[in-house]
Amino acid sequence: MDPNIVAELRAALGDAVIVDPARLQAIRTDRSGWWSSSAPLVLVEARGVAEVQAVMRIATRHRVGVIPRGAGTGLAGGAAGRDGAIVLSVASMNRILELSPDDELAVVEPGVLNDELSTAAREHGLFFAPDPASKAISSIGGNIATNAGGLLCAKYGVTREAVLGLTVVLPDGELLRTGHRTVKGVTGYDLTALLVGSEGTLGVVVEATVRLLPIAPGGTATVAAFFEDVAAAARAAAAITASRLRPAVMEIIDASALAAIRAYLGPAAFEGLPLPSPGQAFLLVQSDGRDARLAAEAIAEVVRAEGVEPQISLDERTGERLLAVRRAFHAALAARGEVLIEDVCVPRSRMREMFEAIDGIARRYGVEIPTVAHAGDGNLHPNFVIPGVPVGAALEPGFAVPDAIWSAADELFHAALALGGTLTGEHGVGVLKNRWLGEELGTTSLELQRRLKAVFDPLGIMNPGAVFR
Amino acid sequence: MDPNIVAELRAALGDAVIVDPARLQAIRTDRSGWWSSSAPLVLVEARGVAEVQAVMRIATRHRVGVIPRGAGTGLAGGAAGRDGAIVLSVASMNRILELSPDDELAVVEPGVLNDELSTAAREHGLFFAPDPASKAISSIGGNIATNAGGLLCAKYGVTREAVLGLTVVLPDGELLRTGHRTVKGVTGYDLTALLVGSEGTLGVVVEATVRLLPIAPGGTATVAAFFEDVAAAARAAAAITASRLRPAVMEIIDASALAAIRAYLGPAAFEGLPLPSPGQAFLLVQSDGRDARLAAEAIAEVVRAEGVEPQISLDERTGERLLAVRRAFHAALAARGEVLIEDVCVPRSRMREMFEAIDGIARRYGVEIPTVAHAGDGNLHPNFVIPGVPVGAALEPGFAVPDAIWSAADELFHAALALGGTLTGEHGVGVLKNRWLGEELGTTSLELQRRLKAVFDPLGIMNPGAVFR
Repeated sequence: MDPNIVAELRAALGDAVIVDPARLQAIRTDRSGWWSSSAPLVLVEARGVAEVQAVMRIATRHRVGVIPRGAGTGLAGGAAGRDGAIVLSVASMNRILELSPDDELAVVEPGVLNDELSTAAREHGLFFAPDPASKAISSIGGNIATNAGGLLCAKYGVTREAVLGLTVVLPDGELLRTGHRTVKGVTGYDLTALLVGSEGTLGVVVEATVRLLPIAPGGTATVAAFFEDVAAAARAAAAITASRLRPAVMEIIDASALAAIRAYLGPAAFEGLPLPSPGQAFLLVQSDGRDARLAAEAIAEVVRAEGVEPQISLDERTGERLLAVRRAFHAALAARGEVLIEDVCVPRSRMREMFEAIDGIARRYGVEIPTVAHAGDGNLHPNFVIPGVPVGAALEPGFAVPDAIWSAADELFHAALALGGTLTGEHGVGVLKNRWLGEELGTTSLELQRRLKAVFDPLGIMNPGAVFR
Repeated sequence: MDPNIVAELRAALGDAVIVDPARLQAIRTDRSGWWSSSAPLVLVEARGVAEVQAVMRIATRHRVGVIPRGAGTGLAGGAAGRDGAIVLSVASMNRILELSPDDELAVVEPGVLNDELSTAAREHGLFFAPDPASKAISSIGGNIATNAGGLLCAKYGVTREAVLGLTVVLPDGELLRTGHRTVKGVTGYDLTALLVGSEGTLGVVVEATVRLLPIAPGGTATVAAFFEDVAAAARAAAAITASRLRPAVMEIIDASALAAIRAYLGPAAFEGLPLPSPGQAFLLVQSDGRDARLAAEAIAEVVRAEGVEPQISLDERTGERLLAVRRAFHAALAARGEVLIEDVCVPRSRMREMFEAIDGIARRYGVEIPTVAHAGDGNLHPNFVIPGVPVGAALEPGFAVPDAIWSAADELFHAALALGGTLTGEHGVGVLKNRWLGEELGTTSLELQRRLKAVFDPLGIMNPGAVFR
């Protein structure tokens, strides 16, 4: 590695250039628990577009890899520092540049946290629809990189639908502007959509024009029900979809996930609900808008037809408390040990089969796999519990998911593909799932995608190893 | 041109290959009124995927252009036969291959008409959200090619949001499959979104997996109001948006458009509404769902605050009749002569300024420009009336929009761009607007887009002249 790279970065960016080994060590991971096997060269904390451009020009000159990084909350290792690359953090570029209630949009820097934007928008009766479970700590840039979803996607869409336009620094330092301030526009190819979900492999997002949606008036109503097993809960979710209801939120929490959450949050979180019996799964459905109550009653009717008496909550606080149960899933598991967090998505009609496949894998591999699902869009998050490691083990450099767990995950991916599903609904491929990419895409698509990448990044310096091997 | 091309096509496709001069003449236009100046070589009416592949292999061998064509209802000349190219019609590939109520999707061939799919979906309480005014005669393949919009986009999204996956024949005859049967998925780049709106310049769509949405229960409620001028109507539409209401439909019809529609449909279409005074513009807002009535009352309240007493219709038939008024716009103008149909889109807050710009252009050029607008998303359709030509003139080969009209349109485009808008919200660039493409995109984006096209189409045979000059 050319020692001039750091010197050149220093000359251009001064104290934004960090080589402190402890800092470089800390960014060799994200929230996936994966640690890279070799350190990055340097961390650069860019403070503006011109600095990002300067970094990319230097990287191009030296043909050195650049790993864009935001809040570091990814779940697929895509932003983990590695292999002597420059880690280019845009976390400090965190200003909301504009919030236009008239055009129902905001212009933000990539480091703005998801929740910060939602909070700012709320004053105007608006919200930012993507709501990954990490929304309090994940940045909009990262949401864009992975096309993040969350609890509200089935009704309000994923990040792609929320991004109107982007400003991107290309690998050679040039600035590309895509999209519009309008909600429609078909002048040329949809580069905005191509960049959303591209995981930092095409360029560095330095600004985003994002769509805000009106908060539905009338609040929310929440339906909660325990089913004898997860298959029954999945059947009820499918029946709700089949009855043409379109709730804002529809989540399934399986028995093992539910037990972990109960242990973590304590019984108060479930106040007012019956005590679940062992093996029972939890279905949580929330409607919103002026007809929230009527919709909740219709949902409850479908649940009753499945033989279960649900609980309907009309007050928002109870609704929020129940959603908090779902959102506590990751924290509840982390409090017990380490997990490999997965993210398959299947056609909604195949969700029950996917739960069965997960159960089979758990039994064959003797591994516990607590699972939650965004049931409105068939997106399941099976969490493979890694046995025999203490709480916080993944925070230690060098931690690695055991091969046996990856073998179980391999079966999971194959089962999802066999059901017409996908490897990843909303977390991205990153470096952790790149080996399965070709299996899902097939040769024609994979080769085409590699050539598309080369149009943006002819030297192959953008996030090398992420998405593509 | 190699005479073997037709012979090879014949050998491969038999009587699907058409060289009858009258047939070739008829496909030198679309619904834009533009006629190409030189004839295509041949028309091929493909009956299946293998035939499309055969055509593309022959075209690649001979490096001859291929123009994919569906129902021929485009408004930008993109599918008009020209320049010795092969016109590859997929209109006969018109089967609905699957309709899955459980997964709320359909798998269709590209020649299926928009309305046919909606009718089939309706039986299951579902609908196909893209609803261009041409929906009775336009095909899904064409909707995909242009990323078609319509009246319902502001609430239900454009075609991009409705397409989950595509099967595409690439220029070399290879088959590319993109996307999923799931509503989420981030494995690799979003090629589906890249292909939507690509106007046949990347490949030939031979199958699409499209999302269907549940029909909102509870029907619709419609608010209709006359404003003293179009600026006042635009102000009211902006106020409705600002009040965080999100109607399913929000249309503005300006005075000149309104007069044409009244003359065409007769007074019965406006039954129950007050007679508009000269200069008055019409605002038509429709809410849907269980809270349709409450939402309509809230909309009416906003309209009243603008000083106008609206009419609220709760029965669906009246609502449909009022929407039919809007949908009759193109037919009403066609009954009087010929028009150049435009399609600019501006940020919603700039709509009033765009109407003013149109008024200025109309006065400076002495041309009548009746305009309707999808006010929920800032998409205006100014129609430049071409003076001195008889009804149906554009149906005659050789018809051309006069230069003076194009000069006026040039000003329109510049005005839209100056307001932060776009050349085309939903009709596409085609061959008619390719000369303005670079102005909107800028050099970096334009060059990148050309290189992306070359990845799919290295020989430049896919719809040459469309989108890019």
